[in-house]
Amino acid sequence: MNRRIVFNIIGRMIAVEAALLLLPIFVSVYFNEACVTAFIITALIALAVGLGFMFLIKPKTQVIYAREGYAIVAFAWILMSAIGALPFVISGEIPNYIDALFETVSGFTTTGASIVPNVELLSKGILFWRSFTHWIGGMGILVFIMAIIPNFTDRSIHIMRAEMPGPIVGKLVPRVKDTAKILYLIYIALTFLQIILLVLGDMPLFDSVIHTFGTAGTGGFGIKADSIAGYSHYCQWVIAIFMMLFGINFNIFYLVLLRKFKSIFKSSELWCYLGIILFATATITLNIRSTCAGLEEAFRLSAFQVSSIITTTGYATANFDVWPTLSKSILLLLMFVGACAGSTGGGLKVSRVVLLFKTIKQELKNMIHPRSVSTVKFEGRTVDERTVRSVGSYLAIYIVCFVFVFVILSFDRYNIETNFSAVAACFNNIGPGFSAVGPAANYAGYSFFSKLTLAFSMLLGRLEILPLILALSPATWKRK
Amino acid sequence: MNRRIVFNIIGRMIAVEAALLLLPIFVSVYFNEACVTAFIITALIALAVGLGFMFLIKPKTQVIYAREGYAIVAFAWILMSAIGALPFVISGEIPNYIDALFETVSGFTTTGASIVPNVELLSKGILFWRSFTHWIGGMGILVFIMAIIPNFTDRSIHIMRAEMPGPIVGKLVPRVKDTAKILYLIYIALTFLQIILLVLGDMPLFDSVIHTFGTAGTGGFGIKADSIAGYSHYCQWVIAIFMMLFGINFNIFYLVLLRKFKSIFKSSELWCYLGIILFATATITLNIRSTCAGLEEAFRLSAFQVSSIITTTGYATANFDVWPTLSKSILLLLMFVGACAGSTGGGLKVSRVVLLFKTIKQELKNMIHPRSVSTVKFEGRTVDERTVRSVGSYLAIYIVCFVFVFVILSFDRYNIETNFSAVAACFNNIGPGFSAVGPAANYAGYSFFSKLTLAFSMLLGRLEILPLILALSPATWKRK
Repeated sequence: MNRRIVFNIIGRMIAVEAALLLLPIFVSVYFNEACVTAFIITALIALAVGLGFMFLIKPKTQVIYAREGYAIVAFAWILMSAIGALPFVISGEIPNYIDALFETVSGFTTTGASIVPNVELLSKGILFWRSFTHWIGGMGILVFIMAIIPNFTDRSIHIMRAEMPGPIVGKLVPRVKDTAKILYLIYIALTFLQIILLVLGDMPLFDSVIHTFGTAGTGGFGIKADSIAGYSHYCQWVIAIFMMLFGINFNIFYLVLLRKFKSIFKSSELWCYLGIILFATATITLNIRSTCAGLEEAFRLSAFQVSSIITTTGYATANFDVWPTLSKSILLLLMFVGACAGSTGGGLKVSRVVLLFKTIKQELKNMIHPRSVSTVKFEGRTVDERTVRSVGSYLAIYIVCFVFVFVILSFDRYNIETNFSAVAACFNNIGPGFSAVGPAANYAGYSFFSKLTLAFSMLLGRLEILPLILALSPATWKRK
Repeated sequence: MNRRIVFNIIGRMIAVEAALLLLPIFVSVYFNEACVTAFIITALIALAVGLGFMFLIKPKTQVIYAREGYAIVAFAWILMSAIGALPFVISGEIPNYIDALFETVSGFTTTGASIVPNVELLSKGILFWRSFTHWIGGMGILVFIMAIIPNFTDRSIHIMRAEMPGPIVGKLVPRVKDTAKILYLIYIALTFLQIILLVLGDMPLFDSVIHTFGTAGTGGFGIKADSIAGYSHYCQWVIAIFMMLFGINFNIFYLVLLRKFKSIFKSSELWCYLGIILFATATITLNIRSTCAGLEEAFRLSAFQVSSIITTTGYATANFDVWPTLSKSILLLLMFVGACAGSTGGGLKVSRVVLLFKTIKQELKNMIHPRSVSTVKFEGRTVDERTVRSVGSYLAIYIVCFVFVFVILSFDRYNIETNFSAVAACFNNIGPGFSAVGPAANYAGYSFFSKLTLAFSMLLGRLEILPLILALSPATWKRK
């Protein structure tokens, strides 16, 4: 284990966080708010910690293997959240540190679960930082660092693998650094496009920026008690469509730029993703029609909620907790399916679900014809045995972690439906669940211990479990 | 595909069912009940169908491969249930055939889910047949046929593999026929022992027989509205302990007979099973203590319910639907864990859960040291790669089937908690769930379509999915 490089890169990451804190400082200065002090103090702390790590711990070699990748990503995310929670506490707007940590982890992991009872009472600077964490966490802060900081070796693909969601992480171009740059440029372009479209729809600039951060990161923090329900239908549709776009594998956008439309048509993950959205929207539209003013309203509410849940964003234009069982059940399943691999969304990922179905099909074939050799194909290529097995064991680990968090929550005051949906909503980085943590409620009622557990499960979900578990296992830290 | 042997063996099985119907005939004659006609008519139908299959379709060869094994088991169970439902309909005690089929499948699969609103109104003959199906289905009717019918080749291990629960099915002794005999002798001996112990506890003989059938098959059909709660504490303890015993792998009892105590101590499945029971009982005892008259009552209720749920029996001495969330959550998890492989219980099986944990551990090791070769060990032996993979894909198939049934139930009138627990309780062959299908309620409120779906999911659970799916797939039936 090359511990020095681990701490060194984490140091760079914290220094970058200090730089990112400049934005909320500008915002609070602009709106002339008291919380500016909190951001300045936090930025100085981050700068001190970051530079300290960077200059006191010089790596002897630049070697990064899988183990170093896991450790960097896991501890970078934990430390980034620990520091990112400070402005909330120092400004006194979320006085308790555990609450602030929950909110910050929820932000960076793009979960969007909140413990703030009335979000409209928060200052603009704090609201900006809260939503900006979604944008930073969406594409991954380490991918960002790879894009902007020089002298990263190509070994850093291990960092990218650990941070990027999905069963298979490929490089768009031969150099990791260039891949990271392309990803961020697409991300920034789409972000600006959405802000412009929202402003054109008469949404105030501040609101537009905040909601675009929440959409781009598939996070879901808003600034209104009724989420997006109060905005115009045009704005709701813009957000619904951009949520769907940010749930697509970013490789697809790169292929669009390269005009490789043939490759796009061949992407089975994309078509499954769009197919699921279409099917779920149609079913829910028919199911809720009788409770709506008309077919248009049913379709609009259904499309928005489906897009929000499958991409694990968590914005709402309707309280889906009161919808019929069929609609609720479909949303519950979408919570687990999640968005595409290589997007900013969470959940199991569509490609993993598709691979699981293909593995099952192959297994059934093997049982009828025990001696035949069959392989699993995906996106036109044969998937190697190791990836197939890792998808299966990911499912097993996923379930074990899910059950573990679920049991811990059972000690708290709520019923099984609330707890189950709370774990599903946090683990899959969605935000709102059902019942006591539904879209019209929040997570304030859980005990501090439950909140810490849920925050940990958000990190588990965002980093896809293994980096975090491996980084916490002593075997990883052994010197050779 | 050797279709002739499939139909021939199914024929023998139906003929045996005709013979087994003699028992409820005796019972209804003894109690002088009108339902005797229904049993005689059904027995004659079964005899005609069975002998027809046996003598009209003569197999050319005795070859049985895996495919034939799946087909025999799947269709034998479906046909056996279809005929077993007739007495309920003919006697008029459950007038609707779909309801009767639900009840019969629930019986043979040892689920114990009921659509009978007031079980105390049924005649004794019908009650006897209803519970006798548990006893027949518990150890498996095809294992029974293997034990009693001559000229079965050793190829019939494929039938046994398809019918016996668990990831690995071994033969106790070299010949399959002898293995089947030993299993049934142990089963019968334990059955008689429990009947005697219950009668000694002043439970009427009829009640003792019925409850022993329900216990031995880990089924759960009773004859009182309050299940076992009305009997003495002694009888409750006898049933609790025998439920636990019938949830143990029958190989263990054989090892006891052989006095191979060393091998028993090495069985990790046994110790995990007992450990889970102990841990769950202790936790629930502490959790429900404040709602009970004292520690003794809390312990008794907790032990009975844990034993009933983990073995997937479904008898109740308390309405656990009103217990605190922690206790309910633990019971919910036990529903999925299930009993030991090679027992009469359902669920995922303890050995499969243990193997999943071991696979996860190995996968994590592989991620830290990608080049090392590590193997999974279980019960002192190395588990081959194929079995490890099949456990993983079983989990995936299990989840897919679960989700499928859950979505179909969503069209019905109940909420998510009821539907989720109904699928869990039927798929894992338990019986009672939570909420509208809790221990104080029944499944009568579901639509006929939902009932058929739930009945199918009971078969899926009892036969561990694959035989049923493979038997229904056209590829299995292709002629070479």
